[in-house]
Amino acid sequence: MDITDTKSAHNPIPTNLSPYSDIASANALLFQAKARKGISFEKIAEALGRDEVWVAAAFYGQAKFSVEELRKLGQVLDINSLVLTEHLGKDWWPNRGLGPIPPTDPVIYRLYEGVLVYGHPIKAIIHEKFGDGIMSMIDCKINVDKKPDPKGDRVVLTFDGKFLPYAQW
Amino acid sequence: MDITDTKSAHNPIPTNLSPYSDIASANALLFQAKARKGISFEKIAEALGRDEVWVAAAFYGQAKFSVEELRKLGQVLDINSLVLTEHLGKDWWPNRGLGPIPPTDPVIYRLYEGVLVYGHPIKAIIHEKFGDGIMSMIDCKINVDKKPDPKGDRVVLTFDGKFLPYAQW
Amino acid sequence: MDITDTKSAHNPIPTNLSPYSDIASANALLFQAKARKGISFEKIAEALGRDEVWVAAAFYGQAKFSVEELRKLGQVLDINSLVLTEHLGKDWWPNRGLGPIPPTDPVIYRLYEGVLVYGHPIKAIIHEKFGDGIMSMIDCKINVDKKPDPKGDRVVLTFDGKFLPYAQW
Amino acid sequence: MDITDTKSAHNPIPTNLSPYSDIASANALLFQAKARKGISFEKIAEALGRDEVWVAAAFYGQAKFSVEELRKLGQVLDINSLVLTEHLGKDWWPNRGLGPIPPTDPVIYRLYEGVLVYGHPIKAIIHEKFGDGIMSMIDCKINVDKKPDPKGDRVVLTFDGKFLPYAQW
Amino acid sequence: MDITDTKSAHNPIPTNLSPYSDIASANALLFQAKARKGISFEKIAEALGRDEVWVAAAFYGQAKFSVEELRKLGQVLDINSLVLTEHLGKDWWPNRGLGPIPPTDPVIYRLYEGVLVYGHPIKAIIHEKFGDGIMSMIDCKINVDKKPDPKGDRVVLTFDGKFLPYAQW
Amino acid sequence: MDITDTKSAHNPIPTNLSPYSDIASANALLFQAKARKGISFEKIAEALGRDEVWVAAAFYGQAKFSVEELRKLGQVLDINSLVLTEHLGKDWWPNRGLGPIPPTDPVIYRLYEGVLVYGHPIKAIIHEKFGDGIMSMIDCKINVDKKPDPKGDRVVLTFDGKFLPYAQW
Amino acid sequence: MDITDTKSAHNPIPTNLSPYSDIASANALLFQAKARKGISFEKIAEALGRDEVWVAAAFYGQAKFSVEELRKLGQVLDINSLVLTEHLGKDWWPNRGLGPIPPTDPVIYRLYEGVLVYGHPIKAIIHEKFGDGIMSMIDCKINVDKKPDPKGDRVVLTFDGKFLPYAQW
Amino acid sequence: MDITDTKSAHNPIPTNLSPYSDIASANALLFQAKARKGISFEKIAEALGRDEVWVAAAFYGQAKFSVEELRKLGQVLDINSLVLTEHLGKDWWPNRGLGPIPPTDPVIYRLYEGVLVYGHPIKAIIHEKFGDGIMSMIDCKINVDKKPDPKGDRVVLTFDGKFLPYAQW
Amino acid sequence: MDITDTKSAHNPIPTNLSPYSDIASANALLFQAKARKGISFEKIAEALGRDEVWVAAAFYGQAKFSVEELRKLGQVLDINSLVLTEHLGKDWWPNRGLGPIPPTDPVIYRLYEGVLVYGHPIKAIIHEKFGDGIMSMIDCKINVDKKPDPKGDRVVLTFDGKFLPYAQW
Amino acid sequence: MDITDTKSAHNPIPTNLSPYSDIASANALLFQAKARKGISFEKIAEALGRDEVWVAAAFYGQAKFSVEELRKLGQVLDINSLVLTEHLGKDWWPNRGLGPIPPTDPVIYRLYEGVLVYGHPIKAIIHEKFGDGIMSMIDCKINVDKKPDPKGDRVVLTFDGKFLPYAQW
Repeated sequence: MDITDTKSAHNPIPTNLSPYSDIASANALLFQAKARKGISFEKIAEALGRDEVWVAAAFYGQAKFSVEELRKLGQVLDINSLVLTEHLGKDWWPNRGLGPIPPTDPVIYRLYEGVLVYGHPIKAIIHEKFGDGIMSMIDCKINVDKKPDPKGDRVVLTFDGKFLPYAQW
Repeated sequence: MDITDTKSAHNPIPTNLSPYSDIASANALLFQAKARKGISFEKIAEALGRDEVWVAAAFYGQAKFSVEELRKLGQVLDINSLVLTEHLGKDWWPNRGLGPIPPTDPVIYRLYEGVLVYGHPIKAIIHEKFGDGIMSMIDCKINVDKKPDPKGDRVVLTFDGKFLPYAQW
Repeated sequence: MDITDTKSAHNPIPTNLSPYSDIASANALLFQAKARKGISFEKIAEALGRDEVWVAAAFYGQAKFSVEELRKLGQVLDINSLVLTEHLGKDWWPNRGLGPIPPTDPVIYRLYEGVLVYGHPIKAIIHEKFGDGIMSMIDCKINVDKKPDPKGDRVVLTFDGKFLPYAQW
Repeated sequence: MDITDTKSAHNPIPTNLSPYSDIASANALLFQAKARKGISFEKIAEALGRDEVWVAAAFYGQAKFSVEELRKLGQVLDINSLVLTEHLGKDWWPNRGLGPIPPTDPVIYRLYEGVLVYGHPIKAIIHEKFGDGIMSMIDCKINVDKKPDPKGDRVVLTFDGKFLPYAQW
Repeated sequence: MDITDTKSAHNPIPTNLSPYSDIASANALLFQAKARKGISFEKIAEALGRDEVWVAAAFYGQAKFSVEELRKLGQVLDINSLVLTEHLGKDWWPNRGLGPIPPTDPVIYRLYEGVLVYGHPIKAIIHEKFGDGIMSMIDCKINVDKKPDPKGDRVVLTFDGKFLPYAQW
Repeated sequence: MDITDTKSAHNPIPTNLSPYSDIASANALLFQAKARKGISFEKIAEALGRDEVWVAAAFYGQAKFSVEELRKLGQVLDINSLVLTEHLGKDWWPNRGLGPIPPTDPVIYRLYEGVLVYGHPIKAIIHEKFGDGIMSMIDCKINVDKKPDPKGDRVVLTFDGKFLPYAQW
Repeated sequence: MDITDTKSAHNPIPTNLSPYSDIASANALLFQAKARKGISFEKIAEALGRDEVWVAAAFYGQAKFSVEELRKLGQVLDINSLVLTEHLGKDWWPNRGLGPIPPTDPVIYRLYEGVLVYGHPIKAIIHEKFGDGIMSMIDCKINVDKKPDPKGDRVVLTFDGKFLPYAQW
Repeated sequence: MDITDTKSAHNPIPTNLSPYSDIASANALLFQAKARKGISFEKIAEALGRDEVWVAAAFYGQAKFSVEELRKLGQVLDINSLVLTEHLGKDWWPNRGLGPIPPTDPVIYRLYEGVLVYGHPIKAIIHEKFGDGIMSMIDCKINVDKKPDPKGDRVVLTFDGKFLPYAQW
Repeated sequence: MDITDTKSAHNPIPTNLSPYSDIASANALLFQAKARKGISFEKIAEALGRDEVWVAAAFYGQAKFSVEELRKLGQVLDINSLVLTEHLGKDWWPNRGLGPIPPTDPVIYRLYEGVLVYGHPIKAIIHEKFGDGIMSMIDCKINVDKKPDPKGDRVVLTFDGKFLPYAQW
Repeated sequence: MDITDTKSAHNPIPTNLSPYSDIASANALLFQAKARKGISFEKIAEALGRDEVWVAAAFYGQAKFSVEELRKLGQVLDINSLVLTEHLGKDWWPNRGLGPIPPTDPVIYRLYEGVLVYGHPIKAIIHEKFGDGIMSMIDCKINVDKKPDPKGDRVVLTFDGKFLPYAQW
């Protein structure tokens, strides 16, 4: 059953998919293999010795696997790792940033709303605690944890980023 | 020394301040009193029995003090609490969201960059761990902690929000 | 205690209030009187024989009171109704639409998210049930009701708008 | 008769269709099958034991069918349900939000105009009736009903969403 | 002579055509047939018993032909009308609104400039003549006439729309 | 009763009025005098020997009164015409274009929707009837007429603009 | 050597070309033929008896060749002129306006910067010299000349447009 | 007669003037003096030995008068030149660029339309005549001339800018 | 001579100055004092033992003076340093980012054009030389030097920023 | 293993790559050949006698190779140089400017942040050192150097551009 040429079909429904439209072919390959194996990011992360958020980021082309990680990934996902190193290897560099902005998906919009509502308060507390500088989003580790709660489980999302003071010269 | 009428002065420098330009007068009053007392959000938060990020949010008009909290705030900041209840009391409701967007200040931009780069990965992990739903930004608690580190202290920013599954009907 | 000249104060906090910044002086007068009387929209609506959402809309300059309604409003709010008819009377017309868009306040954003997520599905059902046309937002009545629920009270928001079929010519 | 290669034809008319351009192939498949069967959302909803708005939302990729629902859907639409579970099954997650914004189609624009004109009034009434919080658009049920009226039938659109109070911490 | 694969040709000239890029395949089919027949909208409109502006709107997917009109259209344009009813028949609904905005084409921009320059004056006169309400763009008929003039022929563009008073409730 | 300093009042309601915020002081003077006299644009237009839409446009600073018209206007509105010629006289030139765009007021938005939905069809008919060129919005006369109709009165809005063919060189 | 399927190649480099992405196939055909012949716009313009800027505009689909000009063009470029008249003949109309805006290419940005910096001054001088009206961009001829200069050759760009006074009515 | 406090008046008409809102006080002083003297840019330009477009640009703060020019300007306009040198003298630098963009005023929009429609053709001709580089908008002289024509006078607008070839390194 | 109330003057010229409109009062005070003393950033920088670019940044509120630097600044500019420490002292934090974007002033636009044209090439070279990471704009020193050149002096602008590799976790 | 038709695959992952989506086919060819050879920009630059930043810019279509350089490039990359001269030769001109703006990739965003934060200070210093004019981005050479540093290597990015004084006329 071919579902690709729906564009000329009865009801005018096209086939492109904006939400992931910034994802490269080789990354799409990873998503397909993951779906075929029915394996979670958690399991893949275990096999790589990395956190699941970082692994998901790398799947979306937002982080860079080492050659060794690509090799392990090939094993976990049953992909010839030569294909991976050819497309995502040492000469490939992430182009970070996945739209649309403002996000339209409610999961991602809530993060954005966090910036809108709590951005200035967080800035104020960072300055009071650390002085004039920023929390790095480059030297930063991000985790998503599940905290059971009888009134409804909670998502605990943590950003652990290095404080960088402003240079003076 | 009056610094308010600089607009007609020699060099054409105006006086308005966009970064805080969405803050109401009564909130400005709080910031002034805080500065006059030279007191940190941490100390004010202790006096109110609340977290410093929440208190900073309320200072920016992004959260709502109870009448009891306004009374304590008046004591801590030496403001007649009648003034506070008159302006920020039971009939006042926050209008949340403080621009500009995209943020131009690097501290706030880094949070926004977190959404740009890690928004899709975080969404993917939330779905894998919790199913179809979102992390609430309404029933959500936010903390900023300082984690000493010999290579440079780290900012640990935590969002602890209830998972809300999508309704079906 | 004057809180108006905070602009030149210690901490650079200005005083304007963007969320309501499209509201005219005469409408501001209504909000002030309402706050001074400590009266709800529900009570004002009862006195006028109108729905509270419509009354709130008129307070925000998004609907037009009749001269008779302005007279009753003056009584309810202790305002000389001549002042009201002079500013909001027969020669005044609403300029509808209150920004910012996309809304930054989470209450209003959720309505906007309803358009983003359910706009196309609602359009599809309207066409299936009514044919080619629209739900009028001009001949439309809007209600907000509270539905008690042991798992948390629910907001029931209803738009009751005339179906308008497209003209052909 | 092939209508797909019109791009190179006499008059320069291309073939892509922005209004649905965020719809994935598998969802397009559903629309095609629905058109082929000539069946309404109402009938499909009955077969699934769901509301027609929710079903339309799921057709547009804005909600997630359960595996059981995909099975029933396959029966109703004469699609091999394996195709559906492969593409829209447990590993697929909606990317919600369908542009363009502001909407250009008048049906959807009227909903958006409802936010523009009545957003602040609705917010005011929600706060007066419920306090500081929001109407959830996640735990929310939406209906479209037809109300016969001699002066012209009316569309009754209802949002029934849980009230979520703001956390304090 | 194939002009479709010009993308890989010597000079880097692509082939897509944004001005019409929101037009569906089936509508493109109409434009092609019209060009092949060398027939004007005026003639097609006569055959259908409709105005030429409405017919042009329907060609652009901005209005909906009845099944009877599609049948006549098939005759006029030598298209198998089954093809038309399959693609533009009872289950197809227009997605109205054709970009870009602001319009870049001078013909369309001038209409837009009319809104920019004369929007407020027209609103003022409508309110003075009709009260608080709008001119419907749904129950509206639009004509383009040619008025000969020795100093240069004139375009007479008429919008004849029903006045809709605002509901009160 | 002073309604100007509401900014520091109880409820945080500011006083500026974006819809007219592009209107110059001298034009505001005209609006005030018109309201004080309780006179319609129709009457003013009669006194000036001009159409009411043009007069309303000139009130909004979108057209330029001649010195003679300013003199008559002073008489009609009881304004010292020296004041008018000083501010709106021979050295004053209109800066045309009144935001916001897209318009948020439904009256003006409907005109804008006319461009969105019917812009391309109107362009197509203009080209078929006149060739390659535009309808001038400079040499253009605009009228608003009321057409009584038992099913609801109709607004007849007419643009009568010179056709301008494109130069070739 | 095929360079079209680079999308799936090693380095993730796509192939579309936004700068010209609004150009239709038939216009692309002209650019290809021009490149193949190695002929300048100046020479083509001579053959057609037109200015080179106008010819370049017509190549970009921003002006309309007459049937006679298409015939000559076919001769100059060795294209079967039937192909040209079929695609760019009497039923084809330019859709003018070529993005992106603001322009990113420095050559075009400098023109845009001319509007940003000198727009108001030019408007002031036009009003002083001509009164209330505009310089037509429809009845306008544009030339690019090279003026040798020992300190560096100069580009002389001339717009020669008819002054159009505003209508009054 | 005071026309400044119209904001609190009957009809809600504010007084700020966006079109010139980027003009500094000292420049406003020049415009006022010019109006008071009833003198044209042409005359002022003669007195300064400069072109009228350049002088108008300097009035709008888009160019920088020398101290000698400020002295002459003081004489021509009867302003104490010390005031001018204090505000526009050696320590003042233009901040160029006057909004809004896209321009809403038709005079300025037509220049912008020139970029939209003829930007790519002009770029093509510049490259053919000069190679890879730009026409400078910094080392550029602009003139507006009136060319009498029986069919309607013409505006001749000339940009005479140095060609700058791209550096290679 | 008062130049502040020009808003109500003859020609409608307002007085606000967007280019610096994000500068706080206390920073405006610095600019005024600098102009009054007729002292360059270079001289001020020498007195503070800092680079002139950094000092200019701090004048614009884009960097934070230490208390010691504010004391020296008071001496250099003849300002009571208590005023400075009160407004720009330890409790004041920069809100960085000065619009408009895209910049309209040609000096700043050229920097922006550098990002547009050379952003991807610079990224490519940074990755080749340093790996996956960024050049910090926080730990970054910026200099502007003048390099005499017989063909025209050159501006040498240097960014010296720490390379920050991406964290993995 | 074909990775191109992933669009119809299990998980809805498309294949286009926005970050480079403005790159022409012929430039993509260069990137592919470079990756196949595993050669750095530094090495290619050496072979061409150019700087690596300039070469990277030319790869991205942001600069123009001479015919001689294309010949050398063909040798270095093992491409038939006829292919290169056919596509990137004398009749090809760069269309400069590579989006998106604001940049989402952190490497490029930091450059943009440099404009946001230091744009006005850099402008101020340029004016103080050079007078009224700009640093050319056309006659400008850009270098990226690596400066070893025990606390972390540093990126030294230099713009060396000719100062261009504003013309007066």
